[in-house]
Amino acid sequence: MTAHCPEGVHLIPGHPIAGTEKSGPEAGFASLFQDAWHILTPRGDDDPAYTEAVKKLTAFWRGLGAKVDIMDPTRHDRVLAITSHLPHLIAYNIVATAYDMESVEQGEVVKYSAGGFRDFTRIAASDPVMWRDVFLTNKDAVLETLGRFSEDLAALQRAIRWGDGDMLIKEFTRARGIRAAIIDAGLDTAEADFGRRHSDPNSED
Amino acid sequence: MTAHCPEGVHLIPGHPIAGTEKSGPEAGFASLFQDAWHILTPRGDDDPAYTEAVKKLTAFWRGLGAKVDIMDPTRHDRVLAITSHLPHLIAYNIVATAYDMESVEQGEVVKYSAGGFRDFTRIAASDPVMWRDVFLTNKDAVLETLGRFSEDLAALQRAIRWGDGDMLIKEFTRARGIRAAIIDAGLDTAEADFGRRHSDPNSED
Repeated sequence: MTAHCPEGVHLIPGHPIAGTEKSGPEAGFASLFQDAWHILTPRGDDDPAYTEAVKKLTAFWRGLGAKVDIMDPTRHDRVLAITSHLPHLIAYNIVATAYDMESVEQGEVVKYSAGGFRDFTRIAASDPVMWRDVFLTNKDAVLETLGRFSEDLAALQRAIRWGDGDMLIKEFTRARGIRAAIIDAGLDTAEADFGRRHSDPNSED
Repeated sequence: MTAHCPEGVHLIPGHPIAGTEKSGPEAGFASLFQDAWHILTPRGDDDPAYTEAVKKLTAFWRGLGAKVDIMDPTRHDRVLAITSHLPHLIAYNIVATAYDMESVEQGEVVKYSAGGFRDFTRIAASDPVMWRDVFLTNKDAVLETLGRFSEDLAALQRAIRWGDGDMLIKEFTRARGIRAAIIDAGLDTAEADFGRRHSDPNSED
């Protein structure tokens, strides 16, 4: 696209890591970008006008309350593959797997979804067109990350088949540390169950 | 266990589909069982005393606000494998996969977790010992369900590799229906992002 930019117009790719499963202007809210990270992947360029444009855009996003990170595009693609693209792919897939069993199980997948399944359905409700484009345009990093995921899953499957409880405990335990780090960073609520409405009606809450 | 029950003591297996990622008495709250499903898997038995005991236990759970379902144990194991056990296994696995990349990516997995990853970390923070036991004791149903999941994931992977956008759209679109059904059933919040605190500070909310 850069080649087609008129004089004085600068292309600076980037996007916020913010938003919900809903799309479009109606899905916005005033605090959407507050304390959210915003990634910019400017081209390596020491043209002073381009550098100035990157500074301006950074100030713009900071003005909206966001924290700005400058990243190399290839690194961006790898980091987003694990933090965003793989989770969406897995969520879509588990819902599809359940969907095929749903007809067999006569509504029971919905009925008992509070057992864990419903958490996956939120991001699986994201815009299908946008996500098709994400997977097709970040194919290499997604396939590489998916390969690691499948390897790890095969190891867990083997542990279940052969009754290797120690391996399961080891894997399940280390998952807790990463959630603690996310909460410590202020990036998720520490309230149980995402703070879904179920507080004690007799408490002060 | 039934063989070891003294005269007049009846074993009725069952559990609620309720709770959060936290364990123990401190994790309870007054509305925990309100409108939650509770499953009982009594043995097929026309002994009037046993039938009476099942009725009593049903009334007990209804008294706590729960809705009670009687299920065949084998059916229970299959239904819970897809609605609860597979989602937990997948959540544990994606966190483990990310954990191994976390050291490579220098904190970026946590930093950008709002892109989707953080949703998986909630159920991956569940009690490792309980989940080890669930997987080892419901092995057959878990392995069967995991087999379906892996098949479906391989099909998505192939579609990404070969650029089959139509297949991706088709799979991603049907996932939306199941979320709508869960929300219609009152089993999850329709608020975007699970209603995580991010409402417009200028609104009445």
